[in-house]
Amino acid sequence: MYRTHTCGELRIQDVNKHVILCGWIQRSRDLGGMTFIDLRDRYGITQLVFNMETNAGLCREARKMGREFVIQAEGSVAERSNKNPKMPTGDIEIMVEKLVVLNESLTPPFTIETETDGGDELRMKYRYLDLRREPLRNNLWLRHRMAFEARHYFNARQFIEIETPVLIKSTPEGARDYVVPSRINPGQFYALPQSPQTFKQLLMVAGYDRYVQIVKCFRDEDLRADRQPEFTQIDCEMSFVGQDDILTMFEGMIKHLFKTIKGIELKDSFLRLSYEEAMEQYGNDKPDIRFEMKIAELTAIARGKGFGVVDSAPYTGGICVKGCSSYSRKQLDELTEFVKRPQIGAKGLLYVKYETDQSIKSSVDKFYATDDLKKWVDCFNAQPGDLILVMAGEKLPTLRALSELRLEMGNRLNIRSKEVFKPLWVIDFPLLEWDDEANRFFAMHHPFTSPKQEDISLLDADPGKVRANAYDCVINGVEVGGGSVRIHNENLQKKMFRVLGFSDEEAERQFGFLMHAFRYGAPPHGGIAFGFDRLVSLFAGEDSIRDVIAFPKNNAARDVMIDTPSEISDDQMKELSIRIERMKD
Amino acid sequence: MYRTHTCGELRIQDVNKHVILCGWIQRSRDLGGMTFIDLRDRYGITQLVFNMETNAGLCREARKMGREFVIQAEGSVAERSNKNPKMPTGDIEIMVEKLVVLNESLTPPFTIETETDGGDELRMKYRYLDLRREPLRNNLWLRHRMAFEARHYFNARQFIEIETPVLIKSTPEGARDYVVPSRINPGQFYALPQSPQTFKQLLMVAGYDRYVQIVKCFRDEDLRADRQPEFTQIDCEMSFVGQDDILTMFEGMIKHLFKTIKGIELKDSFLRLSYEEAMEQYGNDKPDIRFEMKIAELTAIARGKGFGVVDSAPYTGGICVKGCSSYSRKQLDELTEFVKRPQIGAKGLLYVKYETDQSIKSSVDKFYATDDLKKWVDCFNAQPGDLILVMAGEKLPTLRALSELRLEMGNRLNIRSKEVFKPLWVIDFPLLEWDDEANRFFAMHHPFTSPKQEDISLLDADPGKVRANAYDCVINGVEVGGGSVRIHNENLQKKMFRVLGFSDEEAERQFGFLMHAFRYGAPPHGGIAFGFDRLVSLFAGEDSIRDVIAFPKNNAARDVMIDTPSEISDDQMKELSIRIERMKD
Repeated sequence: MYRTHTCGELRIQDVNKHVILCGWIQRSRDLGGMTFIDLRDRYGITQLVFNMETNAGLCREARKMGREFVIQAEGSVAERSNKNPKMPTGDIEIMVEKLVVLNESLTPPFTIETETDGGDELRMKYRYLDLRREPLRNNLWLRHRMAFEARHYFNARQFIEIETPVLIKSTPEGARDYVVPSRINPGQFYALPQSPQTFKQLLMVAGYDRYVQIVKCFRDEDLRADRQPEFTQIDCEMSFVGQDDILTMFEGMIKHLFKTIKGIELKDSFLRLSYEEAMEQYGNDKPDIRFEMKIAELTAIARGKGFGVVDSAPYTGGICVKGCSSYSRKQLDELTEFVKRPQIGAKGLLYVKYETDQSIKSSVDKFYATDDLKKWVDCFNAQPGDLILVMAGEKLPTLRALSELRLEMGNRLNIRSKEVFKPLWVIDFPLLEWDDEANRFFAMHHPFTSPKQEDISLLDADPGKVRANAYDCVINGVEVGGGSVRIHNENLQKKMFRVLGFSDEEAERQFGFLMHAFRYGAPPHGGIAFGFDRLVSLFAGEDSIRDVIAFPKNNAARDVMIDTPSEISDDQMKELSIRIERMKD
Repeated sequence: MYRTHTCGELRIQDVNKHVILCGWIQRSRDLGGMTFIDLRDRYGITQLVFNMETNAGLCREARKMGREFVIQAEGSVAERSNKNPKMPTGDIEIMVEKLVVLNESLTPPFTIETETDGGDELRMKYRYLDLRREPLRNNLWLRHRMAFEARHYFNARQFIEIETPVLIKSTPEGARDYVVPSRINPGQFYALPQSPQTFKQLLMVAGYDRYVQIVKCFRDEDLRADRQPEFTQIDCEMSFVGQDDILTMFEGMIKHLFKTIKGIELKDSFLRLSYEEAMEQYGNDKPDIRFEMKIAELTAIARGKGFGVVDSAPYTGGICVKGCSSYSRKQLDELTEFVKRPQIGAKGLLYVKYETDQSIKSSVDKFYATDDLKKWVDCFNAQPGDLILVMAGEKLPTLRALSELRLEMGNRLNIRSKEVFKPLWVIDFPLLEWDDEANRFFAMHHPFTSPKQEDISLLDADPGKVRANAYDCVINGVEVGGGSVRIHNENLQKKMFRVLGFSDEEAERQFGFLMHAFRYGAPPHGGIAFGFDRLVSLFAGEDSIRDVIAFPKNNAARDVMIDTPSEISDDQMKELSIRIERMKD
């Protein structure tokens, strides 16, 4: 070993010990006769001291060493005269007697500090230096601990972690697959899994009844904010369970993580909201319930007063913002601009101020008498001092716009604390959603999700009305997991593919292996997959999953550090029986 | 929940409990007025009883159900009159009161028994049924526990598990890469990692000092026995350590696994043999040391007696087989045939029998007097009753042939028990090996392995002589892990690439990112990777890694269950800017 201790562990009780430390030079200060070096490793920082009077040679040597040099320092632990209570090692320092430079360093292209001066691209290129910074170090350690604790939870409950294959079969349903040409089978391809869905179901057929895997998945998408071509799931499946059993089991996992990782005890059962309730109350199927401010519908009471915007709208609704009746014209105009942005696309915004003196002011005084507006106020159970913001239009877009406005108001009021965590389940999702462009239904979750028993008869008559045994786990407005009870019957699965517009032949060709498996004693089963990157970023308080991934790709799906994707040789392509054919536009 | 208990947990103290079990029908027996069903799940088998007298309807229902039906059975636990001490649940049975068929089953294409009647291909096609068999179930549970315990060991020692990317860069050094065409970057490709080697080294540069990952790796090889296109490694790396520290740490991991998983306490430190010693004593760099029977060299004492075969051979050596002097002509002929097989390729086999009456008989009496042969006997310290088997020829091929013969004799003598485990380290591997075809040196381990300090000067003069800080972990003749202390200096790394025949430009293009990283304070580091599939198969006593992988591929790298690789659509190829181009032969 090059060292006796790490840079994070020496304390006042270690004074006089003879130690050897290794690490990187965080910074170096010359104070007249003394030189102080902060030596850093993964575990912390320890101060090294060199004294011009007692050992001028060594002190001069130390002064030559720059930032990020890797050194080995030997000496004795001493009590500091000038203690630093902010550092765990702040009571001590090392009186260095011997020094070895293990490796030199060029000056890094950005500072290795919590707040660095490096831009995004530069830090991506030198990711190995960025990863030295404390925030990233903390995030990766958090990620490790979360994976470890999740495994602990599942192991204690007889879940078995089984590795499913990475080289699987391409199936066009869902997002785009990454494919891998096969050399041994020319003209044929593997695909990388978008999820181990069919394999975990086969494991249920095989009798493994409690499966878990923390596993990489792949999706060839045009990268929007915070998507990565490869991402990690906590993938789970259980047999002989209904939806309730599943929710209870995985709610337990989330609680276990909050308790062991963040010391937060979530005592209550998670709220369960139906998709319909979530949409009506929050305009969102992943509601942020850290704050109330629920949407209320005003369609009926607002109509018939001659205000065309409302009279012609299928839906009118609003939110009540506590204590904001004093909002200025300018502030209200800002909000109007906010909802009119193309991303939200509302036509306008009405307001009703319920002033602290109990008078009512609004942008629609022309159409509504005070008594009319009092009814609106009552609808929200508003208190004097509150501000009511109202929109009208087609129902779904209006609800979505109200959701955006609600979140914006939550931000403005600073009631979306990253230290508060409010998980819930959204359940009873629709089984299908209609796609105008493709002119057919798509599975809202995936084609293996089971319809609710009582809705099966609607599959022919009115497929859009069928509800699924599907659920999402949502925390603070972030969907961290989703799953469903699955179909485990061949005929129902075939029916489902027909509803999705598959010919029987196509369904057989793509998913025959699963439907055949259902013929040999498939148990009732269901499961869930958690987006591990998102879950970690939520725990870390980070806005981007990139900050919790060691080597992420950029928005063009490139790794700029290793410079990939990149060209391969003609020989490689020949062996794989493929050729590049550039598209002409 | 569909059940109150599993099929493996009820015991005599549960008698009279009212329970609900779920599972698969393993078998069903009608004995006059009674029907017995063995109900199976992952956890065991429990006997269900139906009685024609007390409930004829239910009994008739039970008789209709075939093998592998999934059922739910409700009833009370009763003490068996006819106990089965071989089954953990053998003291009890369930008097069934209610029965629900959860799913029917066709008759499986092979029996779901420990010894099945299904052939390899059939069982691969119906892998989900094969996985129901107890041996595979035990293997996957073993695999889960081994991964869990390995993680425990590392977590307790502050190793951090970090996920490295799967979509990386193709580098021709080493085996063939699987590649993935990039849609967003037309004409460019990712490669799937053969190992996370460069990333774990970058993590060391980033200061993570103790890294571990249980990770899938990929190699596009022509599949020989017991290779899989995707396989799993326990991948590890440490900083501020030398070879000794690394061996101690990972020896500890192996010991931990043997103790926690198999209850075997390996008290002694693992033997450490240099590559040279291993070759001289066992003819093999992965020696099976469950038994002695070391090779001894006879070159000098065998020469000069007029026996041309030996006189003209650069090397003569042999093994001494305890208690086999009574081997018959026929048995000795068999052994001669064995070593002459093309896989071994020896020219012939000499024997010396040291009879129990202390007389000496040999196949070379014509050339050697008894006194000459007594010297051979002494060389092996042979005892009366022993058989000495000797070969002569070029040194390396002869040693290898002797190794094969030694292993064969071990098999014949039944001294290679699967219940005995003898791990060792083979160290001091050569850095390079010469390839006649390519007319250049290749890295024996990989290009990042550091040469021994004292041999660096030989890099120019005699590269083949340079020893590496490289080591393999070998158990019972199986290489379960290998690693090295790495180069952490840019200039030495450049030098290494030059020795391997890379131009500086080529080295820069492929591995520039790593060499640049070495400029910014790279610590001394090294590591190891264990072949997890092999390690599990060794623990399981299986000969093939396929038996410890849930969904393996066949020898043509195909998954015959899901039928992949398979064709993809023209649209998919167009999007990826590739085209299939079949080779003409």
